[in-house]
Amino acid sequence: MSTDQNTDQNTQPAPRYALSARAAALRSSDVRELLKAAQQAQVISLAGGLPAAELFDTEGLRAATLAALDTNPAAALQYGLTEGQTALREALQAREREQGIALAGRALLVTTGSQQALDIVARLLLDEGDVVVVQRPSYLAALQTFNLAGAQCLGLDEDEEGARVEDLETMAFPRKPKLVYLVTPFANPSGATLSLRRRRWLLEWAARNEVLVLEDDPYGVLRTEGQELPSLAALAQDVPGARAWVGRTSTLSKAVAPGLRLGWLVLPTALAEAAARVKQSMDLHTSSFAQEVAAHYLAGGRLPAHLARVRGAYRERRRALCQALREAFGGALEFSEPEGGMFLWAHFTDGTDTRALLPAALAAGMAFVPGDAFYAGAAPRDRLRLSFSTETPERLREGVARLRKAWEASRRG
Amino acid sequence: MSTDQNTDQNTQPAPRYALSARAAALRSSDVRELLKAAQQAQVISLAGGLPAAELFDTEGLRAATLAALDTNPAAALQYGLTEGQTALREALQAREREQGIALAGRALLVTTGSQQALDIVARLLLDEGDVVVVQRPSYLAALQTFNLAGAQCLGLDEDEEGARVEDLETMAFPRKPKLVYLVTPFANPSGATLSLRRRRWLLEWAARNEVLVLEDDPYGVLRTEGQELPSLAALAQDVPGARAWVGRTSTLSKAVAPGLRLGWLVLPTALAEAAARVKQSMDLHTSSFAQEVAAHYLAGGRLPAHLARVRGAYRERRRALCQALREAFGGALEFSEPEGGMFLWAHFTDGTDTRALLPAALAAGMAFVPGDAFYAGAAPRDRLRLSFSTETPERLREGVARLRKAWEASRRG
Repeated sequence: MSTDQNTDQNTQPAPRYALSARAAALRSSDVRELLKAAQQAQVISLAGGLPAAELFDTEGLRAATLAALDTNPAAALQYGLTEGQTALREALQAREREQGIALAGRALLVTTGSQQALDIVARLLLDEGDVVVVQRPSYLAALQTFNLAGAQCLGLDEDEEGARVEDLETMAFPRKPKLVYLVTPFANPSGATLSLRRRRWLLEWAARNEVLVLEDDPYGVLRTEGQELPSLAALAQDVPGARAWVGRTSTLSKAVAPGLRLGWLVLPTALAEAAARVKQSMDLHTSSFAQEVAAHYLAGGRLPAHLARVRGAYRERRRALCQALREAFGGALEFSEPEGGMFLWAHFTDGTDTRALLPAALAAGMAFVPGDAFYAGAAPRDRLRLSFSTETPERLREGVARLRKAWEASRRG
Repeated sequence: MSTDQNTDQNTQPAPRYALSARAAALRSSDVRELLKAAQQAQVISLAGGLPAAELFDTEGLRAATLAALDTNPAAALQYGLTEGQTALREALQAREREQGIALAGRALLVTTGSQQALDIVARLLLDEGDVVVVQRPSYLAALQTFNLAGAQCLGLDEDEEGARVEDLETMAFPRKPKLVYLVTPFANPSGATLSLRRRRWLLEWAARNEVLVLEDDPYGVLRTEGQELPSLAALAQDVPGARAWVGRTSTLSKAVAPGLRLGWLVLPTALAEAAARVKQSMDLHTSSFAQEVAAHYLAGGRLPAHLARVRGAYRERRRALCQALREAFGGALEFSEPEGGMFLWAHFTDGTDTRALLPAALAAGMAFVPGDAFYAGAAPRDRLRLSFSTETPERLREGVARLRKAWEASRRG
C-alpha cells in the first residue's frame, strides 16, 4: 500500500462524477478552442458574434442608471416579479405593438437574454426524444439548449428565401415535431431572411398541424436597407388559427448592449403563465437592476438615434468587407450581401476546406469561423462565416488581404 | 356551421398545448395567491422573504456603477465569459478564502442568483427519477428546480442541530442519491443551523458514498451573534476524500442587493467545467453590467460597514418580534430565536391550524406563511414562518398584536 495515500488529495484517484446524460452529451466547441488565438490584439477577428463595443451608448446608459437609482432605488435593487419589471415590460410591449404585433391573448416575459427564452421554451415543451425543427446551418447555442432539454433537432436547408419550410410537408419525422425554431431575419450564420411567401406558408402549416413556431428576431433592428418584412407574430393575425401557435423572442443585446442580458419572450397567455413558472425555477427573475436601467434608457428617447448610428456603421463595414472580398477573391468566393445583421456567409467555389484554412489564416493574423461549425451532422467544408460588426473598414480590408494570403498559401501547399 | 367561425380568434376552441411532463407538473403555490392581499400597504407583512429595501446601499451602488462605466464601459456592456467577469470572480474567490475555503482544485462560476446555481447543479447531475436529499421543511424553489430536472426529493427532518443527516444511513432510497442539498446556516424556513458535529458526519458520509453535497449559504452573512461555524467547504479540507464531494453556493442578494441577481457556485474543477457548458446553454452568461457594478462595489470597501448596519437592524427587529410573540402568546407559541438570518419558525402548542388562521390574520391586517407551504408531502398544520427583515420593530409589534387578535377570534370561532 502506498504510504502517501492520505497526505494529499491530489494523489488520490480522481473522483468519477456521474453527470446527467444530457449534460454529459454537451460538448465544448472545438472552434472555440481554435479561436482563442483570435483574442490577441494583432489578430483581425471576423470570427466574433459581438456588437461593436465602441458604439455602445455609454453616456445614455449612465444617465439611465442614475435615473433608475434616483427615482426608485428599491425597484432596481429589490427582488422583482418573475414576469419582469412593469416599466420594462410596458416599454417592450409598446415596441412590439409598433411592429404591428397585437398582444391581446399573449403575454410578454422578460428573460435573461434571448438565450434564456430558448431554454424556457425548451423546458416548457420538450420531453426526451421530442423533435425540434431548426434551420441548417444553425445557431449552435440553440441546438445545445434543445439537446439539453432532451430533444433531437432536424434541419431545414436554406436557400435565398431562407429556410425551406415547405420541406416540413415531406420530411420523415420520427414523431410529430413539438417546435419549429427559426431566426427569421438575417439568420446566424447564413444571413438569410425568411421570405414573406414562406412566412405565410409556415403559419398556415403551424395552424393546421398545431405546432408552435418560435421566431427568434435578434437582428431585425440591424436592417440597413430593403423592405422590412412583417414578423411571423404580426402576420399571424391574418392567418386563421395561427396566432395561438406563434411565439417570439428578441433581445436588447444588439439594439442596446449584451451586457445587460435582457431579452423577451412573447407567448400565447396560457403558455406564458406556464413559462413564468419554469423561469421562476431557473433564476427567480432577471436582474431588476438591469431591467430598470433599460426601462429608463428606452424612456429616455435616445434609442432611435443610437440605432441609426449603429446601422450606419454596420452598413459601411459590411460594404467594405464585401467589396474587399470581391476584389480579393473574384469568383472564387461566392456570397450574397445581406440587407442587415452582423454576418456574411460565403463559400469557396474552388472547394477550399475552410477548417483546414483556419490555422493559416490565424498565422496570417485574421480569424473567421469555418462553416462546418454550424452543422450538427454532415457539413459542407467550403463555407465560412465572416462578421463585419466589430472591425473598422480599414481593418476589414486588411483582414481580407490576410485571408487571401492564407488562401494562396493553402493553394500552393 | 357557425357563421362567426373566422371572425374572431377568441371564438375558436382554446388550443391545447402539450407541455413537457416536467413543466406540466410545476404548480403555482396556492400560498402565493393567498398572500397577494399581503401586498397592500396597510398589511404588516411577516410573510416575505425579502431583505430590507431601505437599508440598501444605494449611494455605494451608484458610485460603483459610475466607476464601472467610467473605467471600462465595454466590460460592463459587452458579452462576457460564461464563468463570469474576472474582477468579480476574483473578489468572490477572495471572500471565500477569507472564510477558510481553499480553492485549489475548485472553480468558481458566477450565476444569475443562487437559484440558477441550483438549476445548474440539477441539470448537471440529475436524470429522470434520480434522488435528491433535502431538509424538511424545505426551501420550495429548490424543490421546484430539482423536480423540473426530473428528480424526486426525499426529506431529512430537522431538530435543534439542523437536518438529521445521520438518517442518511437508515433511509430507504429507491436508488442511490445523486445529491444532498442543505441550507446550512439559518435555513429557510426553519432558521436551523447544521451543527459542527453533523457537518463532520455528513462530509465523512459524502466521501464514503461518493455523493455530492451542495451547501447553500445565503444567510451566513446575516449572523448577529454566536459562533460562526466553518462551512462544509472549509471543513472538507480536514476530512479525507471529502473535498471532491462538496459544492457550495451563495449570493450577493442578502449582502448587497437581490436586484443584481448575482450568486456563485464553487465546484470541483472537473464539475465546474461541465457546469459552465450547462450554464452557457441557459443564458450564455450572467449580466456583465451587474457583475462589473458588484466588482466595483466590493472593491470600494463599503461592504463591511453596510453589513454591520444590516445586521444591527435585523437583530433589533428579530428581538422585537421575539419579545412581542412571547408577551402575546406565552406558552401557546413555541420557537427558538435564531442567531441570524431573516426568519423565525414557530409552532402553536394548542394545535392552531395556521393555514386556517391566515385569512383571519389578513383580515386583521397582518400576513405570515403557513408552515405546511414548506413541505412537499404530509405537513404539520401548526407551524408558521415569520420574517423579521422588512418591518420596523414598531410595525412588528403591531403585526403580532394583529396576529393575536386573529388567533383569539379563531379560538372563539
